[in-house]
Amino acid sequence: MAAGERTLILAEGFSADRHYGKTMHGVLRYRREDVVAILDSVRAGESEAGVPIVADVESALAFGPEVAIVGVATQGGRFPPAWRDLLRRCIAGGLSIENGLHEMLGDDPELRPLADEAAVELRDLRRPPAGLDCATGANLEVDARIVLTVGSDCAIGKMTVSLELDRAARKRGIASLFVPTGQTGIAIAGWGIAVDAVVADFVSGAAERLVVEGRRRGGELLWVEGQGSLVHPAYSGVTLGLFHGSVPHALVLCHRAGSTEIEGSPGHPIPPLAELVALHERSSLPRRPARVVALALNTAGIDAAAARAAIDAAASETGLPAGDPVRDGAEALLDEVLERLS
Amino acid sequence: MAAGERTLILAEGFSADRHYGKTMHGVLRYRREDVVAILDSVRAGESEAGVPIVADVESALAFGPEVAIVGVATQGGRFPPAWRDLLRRCIAGGLSIENGLHEMLGDDPELRPLADEAAVELRDLRRPPAGLDCATGANLEVDARIVLTVGSDCAIGKMTVSLELDRAARKRGIASLFVPTGQTGIAIAGWGIAVDAVVADFVSGAAERLVVEGRRRGGELLWVEGQGSLVHPAYSGVTLGLFHGSVPHALVLCHRAGSTEIEGSPGHPIPPLAELVALHERSSLPRRPARVVALALNTAGIDAAAARAAIDAAASETGLPAGDPVRDGAEALLDEVLERLS
Repeated sequence: MAAGERTLILAEGFSADRHYGKTMHGVLRYRREDVVAILDSVRAGESEAGVPIVADVESALAFGPEVAIVGVATQGGRFPPAWRDLLRRCIAGGLSIENGLHEMLGDDPELRPLADEAAVELRDLRRPPAGLDCATGANLEVDARIVLTVGSDCAIGKMTVSLELDRAARKRGIASLFVPTGQTGIAIAGWGIAVDAVVADFVSGAAERLVVEGRRRGGELLWVEGQGSLVHPAYSGVTLGLFHGSVPHALVLCHRAGSTEIEGSPGHPIPPLAELVALHERSSLPRRPARVVALALNTAGIDAAAARAAIDAAASETGLPAGDPVRDGAEALLDEVLERLS
Repeated sequence: MAAGERTLILAEGFSADRHYGKTMHGVLRYRREDVVAILDSVRAGESEAGVPIVADVESALAFGPEVAIVGVATQGGRFPPAWRDLLRRCIAGGLSIENGLHEMLGDDPELRPLADEAAVELRDLRRPPAGLDCATGANLEVDARIVLTVGSDCAIGKMTVSLELDRAARKRGIASLFVPTGQTGIAIAGWGIAVDAVVADFVSGAAERLVVEGRRRGGELLWVEGQGSLVHPAYSGVTLGLFHGSVPHALVLCHRAGSTEIEGSPGHPIPPLAELVALHERSSLPRRPARVVALALNTAGIDAAAARAAIDAAASETGLPAGDPVRDGAEALLDEVLERLS
């Protein structure tokens, strides 16, 4: 999404789902002004964040979109068959497509010629840049303070916490920068690398390139968007590669209040917060040891009293400052992080 | 390398290097009977493990090779420019090429047509299989005992330890199987997936597929070849993804006696063994907790007394059985692993 580009969010069947609809919700939260409609036939006629939800591409065209962004993430990142028809209709309607799934639309033997004929773009947000390699050590030379969000699971708010802390820091006049590492962050910020889509050996090199680039863009305080979780049975490799490649000075540990099991992986428990803190600190590279400096709790969907209780319990269990930057603003959490960074 | 295929090892400039020449040394150790010559102009006229070292492809052809295997691994896995001429000469000489670097020869716009014209094969050992995805949980259903080698660094003998323990177990009539996860293991065993070359999100899925396949091939005791190290600044992501995706019941921790720093990464210390044991055990998935059951020390290059002292010190530091299965045979270590597995 270029800034100002009129955007349709494709979220068929998943617009109400925070887990699989995380790209939609991220874009709605941080690029709301560019979104003209959401497509989800299941909820047609409703609205979300003030944006009308429509049943099909034809109805969406009435709102004058220029680009359609794939707003849902599926496990493994491939397109369900029903989606291909949707994509064809978008192209036929003259829309460019922005896609963050692992499947690359630009290489699709059917959609590529259709897009060329319609003179629209197929932008694959997860396409790795050319020339990636392993980390070289240039990450350790970056003259900036680096804070990585880590977490107890996927899709619990690591990107949001990084964005909120960055926004609060910039408001204070700090040369702060959000460093995007996944498709939604890239859609929001307009740059970045989806580190989960590169050759596995090059995750650390991609992370290194991102912190080098973040400094080049003027960031003296870099908020690196975390991915996955060290305790996720499918995504932990990406998490550790990003951790070591981005060489953070400090970690903010994100957790959804009340969660005790990895979502979508029944039987995989989430360890207690104090154990997660110890695991992350022990997993940092000896050459760049990193402490968890704060806990960011996602308390969406519970009431204010329950949220307060969860935050207090987390702080008391770990001895660390805790808060929900979405519910309460990021100011207090930012104070704590900055104090422990210096 | 198909069994019985007459093989030339390409090791130009690196035949004496155990780190970068690890594919050569692995093939020499486990497929010696198929190797007819080694190419390294720096050492032409010498021999290694009884195999003649020659200066160029033309001299090698006198030994009647059918396939040339790239015997060196470079950081990042790309071909130095000087190597392209070597590969062209092999193709012109009628040799197929087996390559484990990240660069895919089969996609090379210059070499592909040359190989087609010469009717030789370009086999890319690191090419990911089709249809990979994230781990699904099928790994936990595999009805076999799974042992993963982990280590303090790359290229210190994890593959060798897995192969030696597998060989010793098979000698005892156990339905044991070596599960290859890297290019050298694949060259030796003739199957496997190079987990460091798949899309980062799919490392766990590749590892899952390997243990499922290992059981399908009849293995009831699976020795999964480890990769990288949890404390390696560039490769740790692959290590953790393989760890979680292969869901081992037990770990054998490999270490080169005396090493205190990651090779090729100055300033990155190797933590003490007891700390490495704790890190690995804490990093195992709560759903499939894994203990380090033994230490395998690589004592190549030190004398017998120093080796004994290093092994005793490691055992005493960690309270775990320790040994060098290459120096002393794998029997004793296998006893210890089997006792702790049951």
